Order: sequence, then structure tokens, then C-alpha cells
Amino acid sequence: MAPEAVGIDIGGTEIKIGRVSERGAVLARAQIAAPIEVPGAEAVDRIAAAAAPLLAGAGPVRVGVGCAGLIDSRRGVVHTSPNLPLWRDLELGRLLTARLGTPAAVTNDANAFALAEARLGAGRGQRIVVALTLGTGVGGAIVIEGRLFAGTHGFAGELGHMSIDRDGPRCPCGNRGCLELYVGRRGLVADYLERCHWQPGAPGHDLAEGRRERVDPKLIAQAARRGDAAAREAFGRAGEALGGALADVGNLLDPTVFVVGGGVSQAGELVLEPARRVLAERAMARAVAVPAILPAALGVEAGFIGAALHGLAAGEASGGG
Amino acid sequence: MAPEAVGIDIGGTEIKIGRVSERGAVLARAQIAAPIEVPGAEAVDRIAAAAAPLLAGAGPVRVGVGCAGLIDSRRGVVHTSPNLPLWRDLELGRLLTARLGTPAAVTNDANAFALAEARLGAGRGQRIVVALTLGTGVGGAIVIEGRLFAGTHGFAGELGHMSIDRDGPRCPCGNRGCLELYVGRRGLVADYLERCHWQPGAPGHDLAEGRRERVDPKLIAQAARRGDAAAREAFGRAGEALGGALADVGNLLDPTVFVVGGGVSQAGELVLEPARRVLAERAMARAVAVPAILPAALGVEAGFIGAALHGLAAGEASGGG
Repeated sequence: MAPEAVGIDIGGTEIKIGRVSERGAVLARAQIAAPIEVPGAEAVDRIAAAAAPLLAGAGPVRVGVGCAGLIDSRRGVVHTSPNLPLWRDLELGRLLTARLGTPAAVTNDANAFALAEARLGAGRGQRIVVALTLGTGVGGAIVIEGRLFAGTHGFAGELGHMSIDRDGPRCPCGNRGCLELYVGRRGLVADYLERCHWQPGAPGHDLAEGRRERVDPKLIAQAARRGDAAAREAFGRAGEALGGALADVGNLLDPTVFVVGGGVSQAGELVLEPARRVLAERAMARAVAVPAILPAALGVEAGFIGAALHGLAAGEASGGG
Repeated sequence: MAPEAVGIDIGGTEIKIGRVSERGAVLARAQIAAPIEVPGAEAVDRIAAAAAPLLAGAGPVRVGVGCAGLIDSRRGVVHTSPNLPLWRDLELGRLLTARLGTPAAVTNDANAFALAEARLGAGRGQRIVVALTLGTGVGGAIVIEGRLFAGTHGFAGELGHMSIDRDGPRCPCGNRGCLELYVGRRGLVADYLERCHWQPGAPGHDLAEGRRERVDPKLIAQAARRGDAAAREAFGRAGEALGGALADVGNLLDPTVFVVGGGVSQAGELVLEPARRVLAERAMARAVAVPAILPAALGVEAGFIGAALHGLAAGEASGGG
């Protein structure tokens, strides 16, 4: 019987869970609110309780977890997670394995997203896929022939902290001019608010009903579609920064395709078109081959689908069923 | 009998040839002047004539070639080479195979260097090696578990054209602010000449006997060792640029070690020390692990040793003996 896995996608507002076949079919779903203010062990209990019903049934099952943050995927430890500030060096893999009676493998959310999109989504059938998530943070991962390239310590793929301007603004990561500062949610919103005329009648102002704190990438995209020049410019600037960074990644890795997901990417061509233009201008092998930049295809389920695929891959690696 | 290979390193002034065992022992050597002003077919004849004697002897032999330039290693074609401007879309692999009666595999010189250093040199025993050559051009290559990571089209590893300043000076490659502009020979020399007081009594001026065209990285290193502040600053600037780019590569690939060779790197700590400092400041995983930056260990023979290893690897891949 073909193996199946339960994938758990731990997000900042909710936890999405799905039972997934090896070929990516979603067989069952569950969802709970993210236990943001709950200490680690109790939060794990809640997650296990939500996942347990999906483990019932015939055949061998694995568990995979995707979580934002600094994750040691070899040991299944969440060192820190921006979504769950109470988690510190939490042995999520060991705790879930004990609660569920099934081996649970943990990876970061960008890795899970990349695995899903590379195997089953926009990168399907492509040999070397570099995937990015443009959200509050900018994550990334490299999938070579269907397998995650994890690097020496499991830290590979941190595209959000490649510097596009070594004298640029300081990033909390310690570097300067990191891509995340230009294409992440915070940078995009700040850039838009600086460019726009924040007054009644301006598209962004009206969409937000005059409340600055309501301005997010989705709202800026709506404003752009209503003809707001500042909104288009803000996405243009973000897309150009993205294209420049992807030219660097392209020169280094010669990937077959880039796949872009996450909240900011829902603006679609507003951000992808300038990215493609700059990539085509700057990529060294542009005369021969410029990798396509494709929008992610699997939507919000990519997270738990990828987590499930990670669980299955970990099962294969350990030789278990 | 263990396979051996003849490696051919096509440089800008000379062609170095060596017969090399699978374990990297150099069994025989030959050398000719680079046929810079000779058309492709005749140049290949000269190279074949120099290599042929090294092919004689017992056991199976392969041929590998390393050459600067835009190389299609799958087809053995040198599209263009900065060292040999008369070569255009030269089918070097096919021509050499015909002349020598032995399969000849072609790759670029940075790939050959990286293979040699990763398997037998400074990167020996390290899982993920990123190697760079700092010369007139800045080349690079990625070796994962002893094998070249070539990318989709064989173009991976172009570290010299990663941008460290997207608004920086225009590079002939089409990008801006490329690493090569800061750490390549031309940028280093220009930066030094701008900083130094070019007058009798100044270390650089005296070492060059007043002739600006004699100033090269080696001379600047000599001047630095005689206490020339401008020379130290020029290497410092180059090393800092290098460290910034390696932080990006580190965030993306999480390599085990960086290996740096090529003419500029002969300045040793003058360039490596500032590179290490900036890498340690900027690498995202700096609290956990910062890859070492090591000087290359194999010297000028790395080129033909790596070419030979490439020939052996191509032989394995094709299943031949």
C-alpha cells in the first residue's frame, strides 16, 4: 500500500493539517487556531489532538511538520519561531512523535512550501527549483531533482537575507540591504506609505478607511488595480529588487525555474513582471537561458502538503515504513 | 588497474598538461605556450601533439580539459574564451577526441580548479565546497560530495557576477556591482593606483620602476608588505567585497568551506582576513557556524589535476573505461 502522511503547517494565525498521499492528493483536512499564547508542551498537545484523527486508517503513515523559524530539522528542534514566541528550543519532533505514536519530522515552512511546489506545483517536472515565499519574512529553499538541498547544517536557501546593496539599510539578521527589506511585507508597506498621498480620496487611504495599520500587501494590490500609481511603484520597486537577487541566485545555481509564493506574491504580475524584466537584464546567461519566474500553484495547502512530503522523505531516509 | 587521466589546463599564457592518477598523483608533465594567435583547428593540433606522449602507457586513460570562458561542457564546446580570442564555438571535445583517439571531456577552468581543491586540496573531506578563483576574471564552482554541481545548463557557480551593489558600476556581463569588479585583477589595480601616491619613493612606484603597466596584484602585495598603506587598503576593500558576497553564498548554500585561489589570492591574509571578518559579521547563521575561508592548497597544478578528475568523472558517467 502506498505510504501516506499527515502534514502539519504551523502558521502565525492557524495550523492547517492534512492527510496527503505520496502523489499529493489531499485525503482529509483539519484546522485549529495557532496556540500563540500557550506554552510549548500544551501547544503540542493541542496540535497532536487535532492531528490524531487524521492518523487513523489503513496503511503506514508518517507525520511531517512545517514551521517558520530557526529549525534544526535533523533533531526536530524549533529553536525560535516568529509565529510562536513562547517556543524556545522546543523538541517538537520528539514531543509529537511521543504524543502521536508515529515518527514526526520537522522542517521550516519555506522548505515545506518548496517541496510541495517543486514536486506537485508550479515546479513540477523541473530539475532544479528555487522557491521563495514573500511574506512578513522572505523564505526560500532549493529543491534538486525532487529533494531538498539542505546545506551543511540545514540552513541553505535563506534567499531573504541575500544582500542586494551591501551599504543598504541594516537588517535584524546582521547583514545590510537584505532582499527581505525590499520585498517583505514590512518594507513594501513602508515604501507604499511613503510614496502615497495619505488623504481622503487616495485609493489606499479609502480602502483602509483612513487607518494606516490596515495597509497590507493585499490592500496595496487592490489600490494598484484601482490605478494608484504609488501602489504600482511600490510593487515595481519590490519586483526589481527581487529580480536583482534572482539574477545572483541564477548566476550561482543555474536553476531551471523560480517559484514565488506567499502573501506579497498574491499581487501577481505587479511584482513578477518587474522581477522578470530585471532578471532578464542582469542574468549572466541571459543570451542562452533565463529561468522562468512562476507564481506558486498550490495555494494555501502547499504548506501541509509539503510538510507531509517531508515526513515521507524522512521516513524513506530512516528506512522505516 | 586504477584509471588515470591526462588533464589539460588551457591558460592565457601557457597550457599545462599532466598525467594524473585517480588519487591525484602527478605521473608526468608537459607544457607549451598558449597558441593565442593560432586559429582553432591548428591550436588543437598543437595541444594534441603536446598531450599525446602522456597518453602512452598501460591501462585505460581519459582526457579532461579545463579552459576559461563560456563552455558547454555537455557538448564539449568552447563558445568563447578570454584567453583565446580566435576560438568561437570551437568543438574542442570532439576535435581532441578525434586527434587523440581517447574520449576528451571539457569544462571551464574554475570547475576544474574546484574539483581538484575539493577532492584533493584545501577542501578535502568537506561535504559542500564552494571554490573561487580570483584572477583577471573571478570564477567559481560548487562541489557537493565530490561532484560538481553544474546547474541546469552547466552555468552554475558564476560567483564573480553576483552583484554586491545593484547600483554599482556596470559590468561587461550586463549586471552592475559584480564581485569581479571589486576583487578581480583590474579592479584591484585601478583601486590601488587611485589610492597610492604615484611618485618616486612610494613603494608601488619604486617596485614598478615607475611603470604603471607593471602594477599587478603580486606587486601590490609586495608593496603592502613594505608597509604601503594604499596597498593594504586596496586588498582590504577587495577582501571586504569578497566577504560580503560569501555571506550571500553562505546564506544560500550553507557550504562547509570556501576555498580561494587565483592570482589575487596569492596576497593571502591581506585579502582573506578582511573577507573572514565581513563574512562573520554578515552571515545569517554566524552564531551557529560560519564557513572557513581557506587558501587553495594545490598551487598551479590544480588546473590540470582538476581537468584530469573531470575526465575521469565523465568517463564514469558515460560508463566507459
